[in-house]
Amino acid sequence: MATVKLWSDEEVAAVPAVKAVFDEIRETRKSDFVNNFWRALANQPSLLQRIWADIKQVMIEPGALDPITKELIYIAVSTMNSCSYCVHSHTAAARAKGLSDEQYAEFLAVVGMAAETNSLANLMQIPVDPEFVIV
Amino acid sequence: MATVKLWSDEEVAAVPAVKAVFDEIRETRKSDFVNNFWRALANQPSLLQRIWADIKQVMIEPGALDPITKELIYIAVSTMNSCSYCVHSHTAAARAKGLSDEQYAEFLAVVGMAAETNSLANLMQIPVDPEFVIV
Amino acid sequence: MATVKLWSDEEVAAVPAVKAVFDEIRETRKSDFVNNFWRALANQPSLLQRIWADIKQVMIEPGALDPITKELIYIAVSTMNSCSYCVHSHTAAARAKGLSDEQYAEFLAVVGMAAETNSLANLMQIPVDPEFVIV
Amino acid sequence: MATVKLWSDEEVAAVPAVKAVFDEIRETRKSDFVNNFWRALANQPSLLQRIWADIKQVMIEPGALDPITKELIYIAVSTMNSCSYCVHSHTAAARAKGLSDEQYAEFLAVVGMAAETNSLANLMQIPVDPEFVIV
Amino acid sequence: MATVKLWSDEEVAAVPAVKAVFDEIRETRKSDFVNNFWRALANQPSLLQRIWADIKQVMIEPGALDPITKELIYIAVSTMNSCSYCVHSHTAAARAKGLSDEQYAEFLAVVGMAAETNSLANLMQIPVDPEFVIV
Amino acid sequence: MATVKLWSDEEVAAVPAVKAVFDEIRETRKSDFVNNFWRALANQPSLLQRIWADIKQVMIEPGALDPITKELIYIAVSTMNSCSYCVHSHTAAARAKGLSDEQYAEFLAVVGMAAETNSLANLMQIPVDPEFVIV
Repeated sequence: MATVKLWSDEEVAAVPAVKAVFDEIRETRKSDFVNNFWRALANQPSLLQRIWADIKQVMIEPGALDPITKELIYIAVSTMNSCSYCVHSHTAAARAKGLSDEQYAEFLAVVGMAAETNSLANLMQIPVDPEFVIV
Repeated sequence: MATVKLWSDEEVAAVPAVKAVFDEIRETRKSDFVNNFWRALANQPSLLQRIWADIKQVMIEPGALDPITKELIYIAVSTMNSCSYCVHSHTAAARAKGLSDEQYAEFLAVVGMAAETNSLANLMQIPVDPEFVIV
Repeated sequence: MATVKLWSDEEVAAVPAVKAVFDEIRETRKSDFVNNFWRALANQPSLLQRIWADIKQVMIEPGALDPITKELIYIAVSTMNSCSYCVHSHTAAARAKGLSDEQYAEFLAVVGMAAETNSLANLMQIPVDPEFVIV
Repeated sequence: MATVKLWSDEEVAAVPAVKAVFDEIRETRKSDFVNNFWRALANQPSLLQRIWADIKQVMIEPGALDPITKELIYIAVSTMNSCSYCVHSHTAAARAKGLSDEQYAEFLAVVGMAAETNSLANLMQIPVDPEFVIV
Repeated sequence: MATVKLWSDEEVAAVPAVKAVFDEIRETRKSDFVNNFWRALANQPSLLQRIWADIKQVMIEPGALDPITKELIYIAVSTMNSCSYCVHSHTAAARAKGLSDEQYAEFLAVVGMAAETNSLANLMQIPVDPEFVIV
Repeated sequence: MATVKLWSDEEVAAVPAVKAVFDEIRETRKSDFVNNFWRALANQPSLLQRIWADIKQVMIEPGALDPITKELIYIAVSTMNSCSYCVHSHTAAARAKGLSDEQYAEFLAVVGMAAETNSLANLMQIPVDPEFVIV
């Protein structure tokens, strides 16, 4: 089920602006597999270009957080947004990057704990302690 | 603003089941400061006990993820649940555990990126690639 | 803080369509107090009329669920939508209708438990058992 | 679709810590059927143990709220978290506990009403009336 | 998958209160097709009547916003609530009303941008500028 | 309340990369007022640059949707994400761009309607009609 067309490799090859992004995805990831997220975004070439450029900068280029930590944060956000597609794709990515079963089990516990205490704090509308405020 | 009473140290001292948890919080954290979350939960002693036991096991005892990573996951979940209290308290905790400005800046970028692509995937209702599915 | 004007009783009195709804709210609730939700909706008279008619039918007229149960469901939904206003107003309503401290404590536990297991089920993208499906 | 393996009864039988929880689930519920939620959690035995212990205490042991009310609160939270799995499993549970068609119809109306007014209150950022605040 | 029965045309025909609403839906939309949302609501006739009356007034009768704008707002809300059904049905509606590919591409960009900056503002808990406040 | 420092004009002036963005914001908007969102992002200069470039392209440059429609979509997303800051700032922006009271009242009705029907569709887990699916 989708609300847009998913582009085949043949359709991608016919539009240079889209093909350029797909080529760069394949080259950057050293893999021929391009997942459906990009095949859906291909319908909107300028959005495709911007999102890929951002993903490359934020998620692929080396930074201050290690790659597995970034994937776990991504999965946490995707879970709370109920993005089934994103939970699947980034859990696969985290495993490909070396996530261990022990890390995943602890990750589940942290997310569950946060979701539970979030609901309690919001239920009781607890005021923020002055000690936690910067401004 | 709150929908429940926040317990003062005097009120806590008068109820042994609550006092025992507060004593353990202070001892575990090596600090006299007990934040409002626990002062609100004090209205429900058995819930207070369970949540503290869980938080201690999941967030404080050493595990497979480092403490800063766990705090970042906690903040990510809390942000998506719009729990203002939790974002404040766990951002303060992450900083107390050594979160650097560079790590925080990258964390913001990852969360923002995830939120954006989540909305795009959900808008287009992109089907999960078979490559991402375990079962 | 608000993004619309909150109508005073004087302003309400000047607009018959709004005054009629406020009169009915006061009469139905047997109280002179009209809370800010209605003072904000007064800016949009036809929306005010429809929402009040619906609230009266769903929340005030006797039905198959008892009044406290309905308020707890309302608070649960409001918490997950992070509607601070609604959590405050419906917690006050539940208490006015007789919610006990024991019921409230158990309610907190149920909501927290649900939020935790929701996040776990969404994280692991657990498939629905055929036993649970009607169609 | 799932991001983890769902354990078969044979796999469960081979791991005592997991088998002990499954035995208790079957005994407590007086049924041989164990749903996928537990078969997914089996990958993380200590989380499985804790979540089952909590569910048993909060949802199964008698308390201040009746069993159907607790299920309705659980479904309301699960709906707002878009947990398809949880909505299915707890709607089935509510029906098994005796939820009538009239109660369910009224439940739908209350949740829908809450979701609508939550969005209106958040859109207009209505300030909480001082009458609703405890602290 | 559903948690309620979806009514067939034969079942609808047997219940006058339900049939009256279905007749009006078909007449208003000038189409014989009645989608599953209404076939599910048919289980609760009074809710069916109210929701149809509201949808007709808000989404179908001419107003101050053009029909495509209303559909885009509806899809945006549905996406953030992760309502897969609603995203599908209202994207189809928007297209039937003339949504162009260019408008849809820009809509995706706006929603994605909003989701990203929402998460950033909530992460940093940015205080509202006094310039933005009415009350 | 905030979890980061909000930069004053003096602090901005001392960091060329930040000053350049603030100068462009002022020039583009033809106004000296720079709201807190940018003063918070100033802590992360590269994120500040990227978000401003994106906002400028998506929200300010002319496109296929009119400026008021884009603001309404932005407010709808922000409301569902419970971003109080964003609801305030984009409601102010929509009014500055000419949103009428009639349009705003209808917008409220559409968002409320969508939130209500979203919750009903998710509660009943209504299957998507084949007529609505592209792929």
